[in-house]
Amino acid sequence: LLKLDSLKKIWEPVAQTLEPDKKLPVGKRPRVVVIGTGFGGLNVVHGLAEQEVEVIVIDRNNYHGFWPLLYQVATAELVPDAIAFPAREVIHKYKNLKFYMDEVTGIDLEKKQVQVTEGEPVSYDYLILAAGSANNYFGNKDLPKHTYSLKDIDQAVELRQGLLSAFERAVLEPDEKQRAKLLTFVIVGAGPTGVELAGAMAELIRPIIHKDYPTLNENQVRIVLVEAHSSALDQFPPKLQQHAQKRLQKMGVEIRQNSKVAKVENGLITFDGGATMEAATVVWAAGVRASELAENLGIKLAHSGRVPVQPTLNLKEHPEVFVVGDMAYLEGYKGHEAYPMVAQVAIQQGRQAAQNVLAQVRQQPLQPFHYFDKGTMATLGRNDAVVDAFGVQLNGLIGWFIWLVVHIYFLLGIRNRVLVMLAWAYNYLTYRQGVRLIGRQHPEPRAEAVNQ
Amino acid sequence: LLKLDSLKKIWEPVAQTLEPDKKLPVGKRPRVVVIGTGFGGLNVVHGLAEQEVEVIVIDRNNYHGFWPLLYQVATAELVPDAIAFPAREVIHKYKNLKFYMDEVTGIDLEKKQVQVTEGEPVSYDYLILAAGSANNYFGNKDLPKHTYSLKDIDQAVELRQGLLSAFERAVLEPDEKQRAKLLTFVIVGAGPTGVELAGAMAELIRPIIHKDYPTLNENQVRIVLVEAHSSALDQFPPKLQQHAQKRLQKMGVEIRQNSKVAKVENGLITFDGGATMEAATVVWAAGVRASELAENLGIKLAHSGRVPVQPTLNLKEHPEVFVVGDMAYLEGYKGHEAYPMVAQVAIQQGRQAAQNVLAQVRQQPLQPFHYFDKGTMATLGRNDAVVDAFGVQLNGLIGWFIWLVVHIYFLLGIRNRVLVMLAWAYNYLTYRQGVRLIGRQHPEPRAEAVNQ
Repeated sequence: LLKLDSLKKIWEPVAQTLEPDKKLPVGKRPRVVVIGTGFGGLNVVHGLAEQEVEVIVIDRNNYHGFWPLLYQVATAELVPDAIAFPAREVIHKYKNLKFYMDEVTGIDLEKKQVQVTEGEPVSYDYLILAAGSANNYFGNKDLPKHTYSLKDIDQAVELRQGLLSAFERAVLEPDEKQRAKLLTFVIVGAGPTGVELAGAMAELIRPIIHKDYPTLNENQVRIVLVEAHSSALDQFPPKLQQHAQKRLQKMGVEIRQNSKVAKVENGLITFDGGATMEAATVVWAAGVRASELAENLGIKLAHSGRVPVQPTLNLKEHPEVFVVGDMAYLEGYKGHEAYPMVAQVAIQQGRQAAQNVLAQVRQQPLQPFHYFDKGTMATLGRNDAVVDAFGVQLNGLIGWFIWLVVHIYFLLGIRNRVLVMLAWAYNYLTYRQGVRLIGRQHPEPRAEAVNQ
Repeated sequence: LLKLDSLKKIWEPVAQTLEPDKKLPVGKRPRVVVIGTGFGGLNVVHGLAEQEVEVIVIDRNNYHGFWPLLYQVATAELVPDAIAFPAREVIHKYKNLKFYMDEVTGIDLEKKQVQVTEGEPVSYDYLILAAGSANNYFGNKDLPKHTYSLKDIDQAVELRQGLLSAFERAVLEPDEKQRAKLLTFVIVGAGPTGVELAGAMAELIRPIIHKDYPTLNENQVRIVLVEAHSSALDQFPPKLQQHAQKRLQKMGVEIRQNSKVAKVENGLITFDGGATMEAATVVWAAGVRASELAENLGIKLAHSGRVPVQPTLNLKEHPEVFVVGDMAYLEGYKGHEAYPMVAQVAIQQGRQAAQNVLAQVRQQPLQPFHYFDKGTMATLGRNDAVVDAFGVQLNGLIGWFIWLVVHIYFLLGIRNRVLVMLAWAYNYLTYRQGVRLIGRQHPEPRAEAVNQ
């Protein structure tokens, strides 16, 4: 590292003469405001670090959350800190970057200004929107009150507390039917999030029932994965879909296909067609939509509330405004589909948007976004994962191993990698004998109304 | 372990013939209800494990919290899981023990029944109260609303979030005076908790100011330890008091002696005599009192709301009811003082109470409580602690090393010990470059009213 620094000291003056416009006086540098420190935002930040722009990054949290492992926080495999990387740890390395922990409440495209909750409004020359996504309840306003969701660390902790306290409450529940309800866990939506969560829940629950809750009846425990379509993981090839379904069933997960949820109220799920089901814990993983921030732009939004962008990732009417990742709507995936709301798209769009901002600053032509599809994968508990990448379809132990390596690789920071690897090794060897801490903030399973 | 088990199989039938009354038929065994899984409760449980009683342990949390390290959760040194040990992990080992996670709301000494929030009332033949302590606000009802406290994990996490977000808010605060208020941290009470917290806060804050908040002025940061008496740690010998004060001052902690806090409101502290001080973060560590449960007994309580017990640790009018630890009031410490509210008293009283319950069951005479004083200690940040034990007074590196060993030794569970040792080693080597995660639940410093 010392050597790298000395090389830098030699190189930097040379670089300045080669690219003199890179070193505009500080006061005259254009200001780029980046909203969000997710995969999109962080890649924008990396692309703008040490360039001739002043960058202000705004996020309501002070960390970058590694959401692909969020379900493991909900199932007590990982502590929240293991998947959170401090935003300032990235940002303090570079002098042209600043971080504000604040919540963006509005965007004025005409005044080129961002309104926030805590601080003063922030003006920009260029704006990059990378605020990610939120759960999609398809207009049903009661769903968020009666279901858990899994979109950030606080929600994951809340779900973990709900899961674990359901067992504690079942111990105290004299009524057989109510006990069965407390021990029924429903996940709505069998995409990668729903599938990974269902597998992890099955692995959490079996051993603790045996070991810690001898008075509960194991046969009353149900984990139900509800899917509106005909199969779990329907974006995967049919062979992998079938493998995933068989594996989940073997782990004790019931899969309820072709079932659309119409309503969830106090632990009573009503399906389209009128069938019902009782479960104290209902997790909504049936869809995502762009962050509500998109609605502030006064622009006609595309499917899932996403912001339509040009191939260069900026707005037609406001070329100084870029949108990346889950918030952006752009067609071109597999021919003419919209790019999916996944980490890889956000990462690559973040890089491209940073380059295009610099191109505008340098009055050079912007480049359109090209996606390099690295494939997709999902774990199915211990020793198994489905992987569909580069035309190859894998499952079983080799898929699981690839999943492990890829997730450790993309996790930020040595400390987080060590924390995650240690926790995984410990959980693997002990079959999850970790601490299953229930906090006092949310003792009630959210979807539950046992005593009503 | 396998060998131990086979030995047990040989020994147990022998033991039964030797002590035939130990194996009463299950239905006829007297029931002991233990309230609390702190140091007192857990030691009762160990004493009653595999004896001829049925034991029901009730706690509102599902874990035993190792409170001596709680301040390290508040200062982002340890994750909450590291100091929490699952109650069921202790209890599931023995067949005569059961655990209920529930909140006790009342005790009927005549009916011999405990009322709880979730489950049915629980009847007992013997009751052991070990519900610990709460913050003592000396009747001031506004204090808990305007100050942080440090009595359980949720409070520690809340304080951590308040501490860290104070810096994030200071970055956004244009007004100099308000920024100074945000960067002032006051701890009321310079007993071991206040002193350890002040030292850990100083060590947390100095490096992050330098590294992560270049725009903030380090000289605006104040950590103030307020003490009503003439010195910090006034239960320690004068030599150690002086050492502790010097060391804290060297770390940048201001000590305000002979200052009694009269009022705290929206970050404005008013002292007796009228002096005032502004601080966004005020932590109340000025005293403890017995758990409010004591008030349910209909008994005249002693100092700090503690329950007066006989030397055998039970109530005179209800000899089947025992009280141990912080909740119990018994004189005999250093002659005629009340036993202090510390872990060692709770541990030893827990053991004695278990023995006395069994003595009652076996119709043998009860034994009075005898305290073996193992001394007291407090850390003063990195490489320093004061230790006063067995007539020896130590400080500096050797005191710190003893502190480390003792705390690792008393921590329950191999997993927790490993977690804590790894975190300490990491923090020690990197000067606290860990994750400083702020959750979204409590973004506002509690005592703060910057925008009013």
